[in-house]
Amino acid sequence: MLNRVALRSATSLPKRQIARTVLSTPRTFVTSSSIMAEQKFRQEKDTFGPLQVPADRYWGAQTQRSLMNFDIGGPTERMPPPLIKAFGVLKKAAAHVNQTYGLPADVAENISKAADEVISGKLIDEFPLVVFQTGSGTQTNMNVNEVISNRAIELMGGELGSKKPVHPNDHVNMSQSSNDTFPTAMHVAAVVEINETLLPALRELHDALEEKKKSFDHIIKIGRTHLQDATPLTLGQEFSGYVTQVAKGIARVESTIANLSQLAQGGTAVGTGLNTKVGFDEKVAAEISKITGHKFITAPNKFEALAAHDAIVEASGALNTVAVSLMKIANDIRYLGSGPRCGLGELELPENEPGSSIMPGKVNPTQCEALTMVAAQVMGNNTTISVAGSYGQFELNVFKPVLIKNLLQSIRLLADGSRSFTKNCVVGIKANEDKIKKIMNESLMLATCLNSVLGYDDVAAIAKNAHKKGITLKESALESGKLTAEQFDSKVKPELMLGPDEV
Amino acid sequence: MLNRVALRSATSLPKRQIARTVLSTPRTFVTSSSIMAEQKFRQEKDTFGPLQVPADRYWGAQTQRSLMNFDIGGPTERMPPPLIKAFGVLKKAAAHVNQTYGLPADVAENISKAADEVISGKLIDEFPLVVFQTGSGTQTNMNVNEVISNRAIELMGGELGSKKPVHPNDHVNMSQSSNDTFPTAMHVAAVVEINETLLPALRELHDALEEKKKSFDHIIKIGRTHLQDATPLTLGQEFSGYVTQVAKGIARVESTIANLSQLAQGGTAVGTGLNTKVGFDEKVAAEISKITGHKFITAPNKFEALAAHDAIVEASGALNTVAVSLMKIANDIRYLGSGPRCGLGELELPENEPGSSIMPGKVNPTQCEALTMVAAQVMGNNTTISVAGSYGQFELNVFKPVLIKNLLQSIRLLADGSRSFTKNCVVGIKANEDKIKKIMNESLMLATCLNSVLGYDDVAAIAKNAHKKGITLKESALESGKLTAEQFDSKVKPELMLGPDEV
Amino acid sequence: MLNRVALRSATSLPKRQIARTVLSTPRTFVTSSSIMAEQKFRQEKDTFGPLQVPADRYWGAQTQRSLMNFDIGGPTERMPPPLIKAFGVLKKAAAHVNQTYGLPADVAENISKAADEVISGKLIDEFPLVVFQTGSGTQTNMNVNEVISNRAIELMGGELGSKKPVHPNDHVNMSQSSNDTFPTAMHVAAVVEINETLLPALRELHDALEEKKKSFDHIIKIGRTHLQDATPLTLGQEFSGYVTQVAKGIARVESTIANLSQLAQGGTAVGTGLNTKVGFDEKVAAEISKITGHKFITAPNKFEALAAHDAIVEASGALNTVAVSLMKIANDIRYLGSGPRCGLGELELPENEPGSSIMPGKVNPTQCEALTMVAAQVMGNNTTISVAGSYGQFELNVFKPVLIKNLLQSIRLLADGSRSFTKNCVVGIKANEDKIKKIMNESLMLATCLNSVLGYDDVAAIAKNAHKKGITLKESALESGKLTAEQFDSKVKPELMLGPDEV
Amino acid sequence: MLNRVALRSATSLPKRQIARTVLSTPRTFVTSSSIMAEQKFRQEKDTFGPLQVPADRYWGAQTQRSLMNFDIGGPTERMPPPLIKAFGVLKKAAAHVNQTYGLPADVAENISKAADEVISGKLIDEFPLVVFQTGSGTQTNMNVNEVISNRAIELMGGELGSKKPVHPNDHVNMSQSSNDTFPTAMHVAAVVEINETLLPALRELHDALEEKKKSFDHIIKIGRTHLQDATPLTLGQEFSGYVTQVAKGIARVESTIANLSQLAQGGTAVGTGLNTKVGFDEKVAAEISKITGHKFITAPNKFEALAAHDAIVEASGALNTVAVSLMKIANDIRYLGSGPRCGLGELELPENEPGSSIMPGKVNPTQCEALTMVAAQVMGNNTTISVAGSYGQFELNVFKPVLIKNLLQSIRLLADGSRSFTKNCVVGIKANEDKIKKIMNESLMLATCLNSVLGYDDVAAIAKNAHKKGITLKESALESGKLTAEQFDSKVKPELMLGPDEV
Repeated sequence: MLNRVALRSATSLPKRQIARTVLSTPRTFVTSSSIMAEQKFRQEKDTFGPLQVPADRYWGAQTQRSLMNFDIGGPTERMPPPLIKAFGVLKKAAAHVNQTYGLPADVAENISKAADEVISGKLIDEFPLVVFQTGSGTQTNMNVNEVISNRAIELMGGELGSKKPVHPNDHVNMSQSSNDTFPTAMHVAAVVEINETLLPALRELHDALEEKKKSFDHIIKIGRTHLQDATPLTLGQEFSGYVTQVAKGIARVESTIANLSQLAQGGTAVGTGLNTKVGFDEKVAAEISKITGHKFITAPNKFEALAAHDAIVEASGALNTVAVSLMKIANDIRYLGSGPRCGLGELELPENEPGSSIMPGKVNPTQCEALTMVAAQVMGNNTTISVAGSYGQFELNVFKPVLIKNLLQSIRLLADGSRSFTKNCVVGIKANEDKIKKIMNESLMLATCLNSVLGYDDVAAIAKNAHKKGITLKESALESGKLTAEQFDSKVKPELMLGPDEV
Repeated sequence: MLNRVALRSATSLPKRQIARTVLSTPRTFVTSSSIMAEQKFRQEKDTFGPLQVPADRYWGAQTQRSLMNFDIGGPTERMPPPLIKAFGVLKKAAAHVNQTYGLPADVAENISKAADEVISGKLIDEFPLVVFQTGSGTQTNMNVNEVISNRAIELMGGELGSKKPVHPNDHVNMSQSSNDTFPTAMHVAAVVEINETLLPALRELHDALEEKKKSFDHIIKIGRTHLQDATPLTLGQEFSGYVTQVAKGIARVESTIANLSQLAQGGTAVGTGLNTKVGFDEKVAAEISKITGHKFITAPNKFEALAAHDAIVEASGALNTVAVSLMKIANDIRYLGSGPRCGLGELELPENEPGSSIMPGKVNPTQCEALTMVAAQVMGNNTTISVAGSYGQFELNVFKPVLIKNLLQSIRLLADGSRSFTKNCVVGIKANEDKIKKIMNESLMLATCLNSVLGYDDVAAIAKNAHKKGITLKESALESGKLTAEQFDSKVKPELMLGPDEV
Repeated sequence: MLNRVALRSATSLPKRQIARTVLSTPRTFVTSSSIMAEQKFRQEKDTFGPLQVPADRYWGAQTQRSLMNFDIGGPTERMPPPLIKAFGVLKKAAAHVNQTYGLPADVAENISKAADEVISGKLIDEFPLVVFQTGSGTQTNMNVNEVISNRAIELMGGELGSKKPVHPNDHVNMSQSSNDTFPTAMHVAAVVEINETLLPALRELHDALEEKKKSFDHIIKIGRTHLQDATPLTLGQEFSGYVTQVAKGIARVESTIANLSQLAQGGTAVGTGLNTKVGFDEKVAAEISKITGHKFITAPNKFEALAAHDAIVEASGALNTVAVSLMKIANDIRYLGSGPRCGLGELELPENEPGSSIMPGKVNPTQCEALTMVAAQVMGNNTTISVAGSYGQFELNVFKPVLIKNLLQSIRLLADGSRSFTKNCVVGIKANEDKIKKIMNESLMLATCLNSVLGYDDVAAIAKNAHKKGITLKESALESGKLTAEQFDSKVKPELMLGPDEV
Repeated sequence: MLNRVALRSATSLPKRQIARTVLSTPRTFVTSSSIMAEQKFRQEKDTFGPLQVPADRYWGAQTQRSLMNFDIGGPTERMPPPLIKAFGVLKKAAAHVNQTYGLPADVAENISKAADEVISGKLIDEFPLVVFQTGSGTQTNMNVNEVISNRAIELMGGELGSKKPVHPNDHVNMSQSSNDTFPTAMHVAAVVEINETLLPALRELHDALEEKKKSFDHIIKIGRTHLQDATPLTLGQEFSGYVTQVAKGIARVESTIANLSQLAQGGTAVGTGLNTKVGFDEKVAAEISKITGHKFITAPNKFEALAAHDAIVEASGALNTVAVSLMKIANDIRYLGSGPRCGLGELELPENEPGSSIMPGKVNPTQCEALTMVAAQVMGNNTTISVAGSYGQFELNVFKPVLIKNLLQSIRLLADGSRSFTKNCVVGIKANEDKIKKIMNESLMLATCLNSVLGYDDVAAIAKNAHKKGITLKESALESGKLTAEQFDSKVKPELMLGPDEV
């Protein structure tokens, strides 16, 4: 009975608590009363009334309220860091542009400094809100406004929570709405992550496969179609298929940048741009381009940019295609590397770790396994994104947080997974040339090159006979009396079967 | 008895129907037993031995065998007609090219004529095989070879099934393999259907929405975010979001053509091009371009073209994005058209049919319903295609038939659904201007334009007060004493809320 | 140029044309215009006015209008026959029950007779409507009402289209609404198809696998984990996993019957049962049970039964799980059967057809391929069903037709696919005992049984040494000096490795 | 330098963060370089050689190696805490059972104590490995073995890393393999989380909806089908549909426990149970039942339990169905609560936070938004789980970590989302009775109750006339001359339209 109680407290209630402490941030959402007793608070208020905020936190009333109202999923479901950083970029850009529209220079400057700290990741613990909140991400926009205003206030010697001299709404959010900032941050984060993590990782993978392809160009092996022995090809040719898949995958991902580079900023609440200024949208896009080093433009149609997230769905479609490609490549490689003695055994994959806690000497294609799990995750994320993208209503799609969370997860997993696969598997792959040669020579499928000599039906008979009797193709051919040993040898040469006939 | 068995396999209907009949009457849908009794057969053979084929059919032994072995799903699961037609195109092109490599002119000519009949759809009943067969589509390739050879034989005065003077393998399939013909036909069918049915339908929809947008440009309405009343916009602006979605959707679909235009033909069995001729691949692509009027090129890497179908997955991703867009648009339109008296009632949708068998006078947004069902289907097809695309093995992906079936279904449903929606709904949409005006004027959200005068907090208080007491915004504003009636009227004007402020 | 025109007319226009003409033409998909020209029409009308209906058709105005308004997808997208039959069952049951509430006996009787013809499939051509229509399936309900009333009128000597003496709404649809009939027919069709096609097929598959398991119980083979050589098991044990998967799959499918057996009938338009009679719901359910021989009850809550289709989503979840199981089983079997010389080669799959049009003697695991394509389709259908199921609105889910179409397709494909796989593959599988024995004896993984003698680390060293030098495990063990040949032989026995140790 | 490299792998943050930093400030989120410099290490080794492990960590060489080899996704992708806890339960149970097979009592006791600390969550920071590792979860099994052995060693006064007197493999992992422990922990975690978090949360939601249903039973409102005005029902009836959906959802989730309760433990590496003892499996299951208070049994077939994860796919199917239900319910509620003035406005949802940073006074259905985002996530996770579940190979499915991660995320999100929705939305929902009454009385659909008096066609005409002229139904009825005011009033009563007619 004691055990039972212990477990329940272990598995259910403490889980919440543990989950929070994992991230090593000292503040929990619902902190035990002893810790709470020690904690100092300051009183803040929003339009709903006053509430207590931890005294040493930059976040304010609206963030605190969201923590209370959306206790869903725990720390692992927090808004992804790249999105928070993109918000930092946006707020910095907005402050800069707003200065040209009347925002006091010192306020702008300190907003910019505080935003830099958001961009750097230094303040990441100030963003405790989870994805499963308001569907417009309003509370995260306010979280950013509150943190930046309070940090700027602090830099200017003011009092946290005083909203002076930097007001979260009037200054940090000046000319903006959650409805245009959140989708702007979504696109900025997506473009940055694609450009800075995914594409480099895919290019590394491409180059490593290309390298293998070259080094395998001379190795002739049995082809397999329907998993059955087929006509030969070189191992280099086989890898050239993978190279092509990844090369096209890179192009697919690159092609999504065009729509992701269009920013909603300037649409404000419903897309009209009410309460912002003419030109604000273009200036912000230009400023963001400058800060990030990636080209952004203002979305030609802000109504679409708020109400739909087709660009995210489109991008996820490209990631899904890459996932499908990687699933194929990783599967092939692990099957080709299967063995060591009872599998296909054509490839030797690098040994990175002990393979089994019970079977000594066993080494597993673990990088392939990690990568194929990544692929499965990305394929499912694509469903989530498609469903969420389909549910836009009137002037706003309110599945924004779950959309960007899944997209950024897909981007990072593909990037990390590809890099790990490249480094810990691909570069170390070796061909087992002895095994490759041995099984190819046992194959019956070299028969195909006799088609032009004997015709389809006779060749089929020879091959079937060899299969039936367990003899070699040559023995069967001679048995048939249709051709001599010399004729056979001159025709059945794997190295002549690697391309079309010269005319 | 043998005949009976063979026939049942051939039509693939009777056994199934009996098995699936709920009650006692074992009738078939199509074939009566009297017709069955009359049927004549000829004997054919393949490498597996002889079997009976209906005497008046052009198909041969391998098709017949597939009918016997794959009784899965019945007639609705047959290979889609656009794929069969694409095979016709391919075989015609191959015959033409093969003539330059030694195929007798009269054979080539009659293959070409027979292929024309496949292209025209005239012979569609000769292609009874279902999708759920060999995963390379081998049997459908043979079905095409058999039908074209027999029809060509007939044109040349020969005997059906004699394989003379036109052999299905040696002549119709000359220099080809199922492994390269099937993916070639997949791509040809996809490109033709996208260009000739989907893109025109999406363009029609785009233009119809654009037309509506223009005619709605003057109508100011309440915006809705989170489904809640928000700041106003014009109905034209709202529709401009839809126009943008469709315009981008068209571009997304167009962008898939590049990879779909690359043809596997020339890779033969494993991608090497064994048993074909140098140059065959490029010549066939050129010939197919000429026949179809669409630009095709030979795939730069044939290994990828056989072993992976990323181009199909990519295309499905674009269709999925279009489906997501259409789901959003059709949902908006039906909600905006909800009523007639207890819904939003801003739009009047055309009445196309009686809405209910029990509630008189009720007219439903049926075109929206059909289109959203299409969207759901396309979203699911995308999962099928992704799963199938991920399962390529070594030199061949053997989910080819299910891949192309789902892609072609998605293309056609989106095309037909869009066209039906355009014609039977969009063009007839009218704005209910009275209702639109009335509810906008009741809204509290016009308060937003007071932000710059009174500041966020005061405006919030006024709006909340109005909401609480059920009074108008103006009454609440005056009650607050913060501004006069004149000030209110000069500031709170919907027509001033449709864009950003001039600087 | 001529070719180009020909093709376009072939691939694009004719298809359209066909799709349309199918609707109005008696049997074939491709009807010549001469037949069309001959067609006679009668004038019908609905609340929207008069329109022409083919004179020899039982359907009426509302069906005809739907044909005009929903030209989406063509004949392959028609409402699935099992649904139409279920409608026949429902209308027969309703007529019977309505007689107790005042429907004239002769009208009831002739409705019942006409319904029998719908059930038998004899009138299937009278149901030309596609799935992508009104989302409540209203038009198919009316199609059924019209066909049955006209056929009953004919049986009673009346005039087609006169609505006398049998009115489609007042008599055939008496006490019913599309909103309760369509979901009733959905459930009836699903239960019937599951019970009569899917479960028997899965049981056949189960029994065939069980049979194989028994016959393979004595064959010891290498196990494979991570695709790598692992400790041995019997081929019977391996197949016992498949048997268990299918057995559990059967139970999963059976468990969905409980909710599917609940019928919406009696809810009428919004679930209240307005315009029907107290007791009608239970009586209809009882009558349907009697007609079909399957147990049905009236849904305890009709609001849920109209507005949600969670029972369909639940059922699709079970089918999805079965698909996942079959994917695993079919993949294993084709990999184990790979070869004939360069694969694993442990199983010999039956040869059912020539495998390749270019490579003679090649036989492919085509039944596995068909079944895995079925699995991919079912997995995608599950996405469609989930999306469609999630979109219910207020008192009605209007994705009914696409829901049932996908569910019935999944049921049938799994049923047919399993039966084909059983008959054409499983029952003919043979073990290649020589190959199995040979590769097992080459394996290093027998080392595992030395763990208890030497400890993990020493065993690992022996296995690694053998792998490195390409020697046998025994040679390596002796080389290590840790144990004698006798000790090795007494410990390393595959037959001792097939289960846990006796205590 | 070696230390630095090792540490970076250990935290898995620094490299990542640098790589992903948008701008120039290469700060990390958590670890500063000063802290890194201070860290002490101890040397451990595995079969691959020696490596450095942080001196104060309980984990050992294999965990450290995994950190280096699988730098994929960062801390948010770590193995979910409920799985780690379940491993604690399993290792405690195994130690207890192993004692009966010869494990020294003091070793067993200290393993048990250390396991208790794993169960309590106290050691959660000792489990840094991510999901995207070896597909069998081998490294997490070893991580658990290492942490428990080292903590037990510590408790017994030994030296960390010495493997004495408690060896991670020989003692903690005694009679076990990763291949049976990981799936065992998967099932234990799933059952515990379902029973202790999800089911209670769903029951709370059910009860809250039931409460609302009761309090709304007297409120008659307009029904809506196809989003269009339909016949009336009570708000209680409408909510009864939701109650039924959730009640059935609970049953669906409960039904998955049966298969999840079957444990793989005892199958060891390939399912045979080699290297374990007869009876070990049943005893462990019994012990786990005792520790957790939930009933578990040993899986009847261990081959299926290792090679397939159909029970996980089945469970995910149930969660997917629940997600679909919640999507419907939350959507309805937010649409019914739309307004405040331009929407349907039938419900008033609780105001929990300020709704917009730009529009004062706006309150949004944020709990509905969070819950629908949860639903979308769960639907996508179902795709991931289905794909991953389909990819089992021979004796092992190597997508285990991604399967359980997605399942546990779905469980927790549904639990937390439901609880938040219940507490912050459902219990506070109020009916806006004035609005409900007002719009119902304006409706034309009350006409339906005239069908039995006037017949369908006449009633349709009256309703259409009212619609056309914008007059009330009564006015239109009188205008038609078909019935008097008295007759109208006596017939058209919403309160008479809420159920079937008495016979």
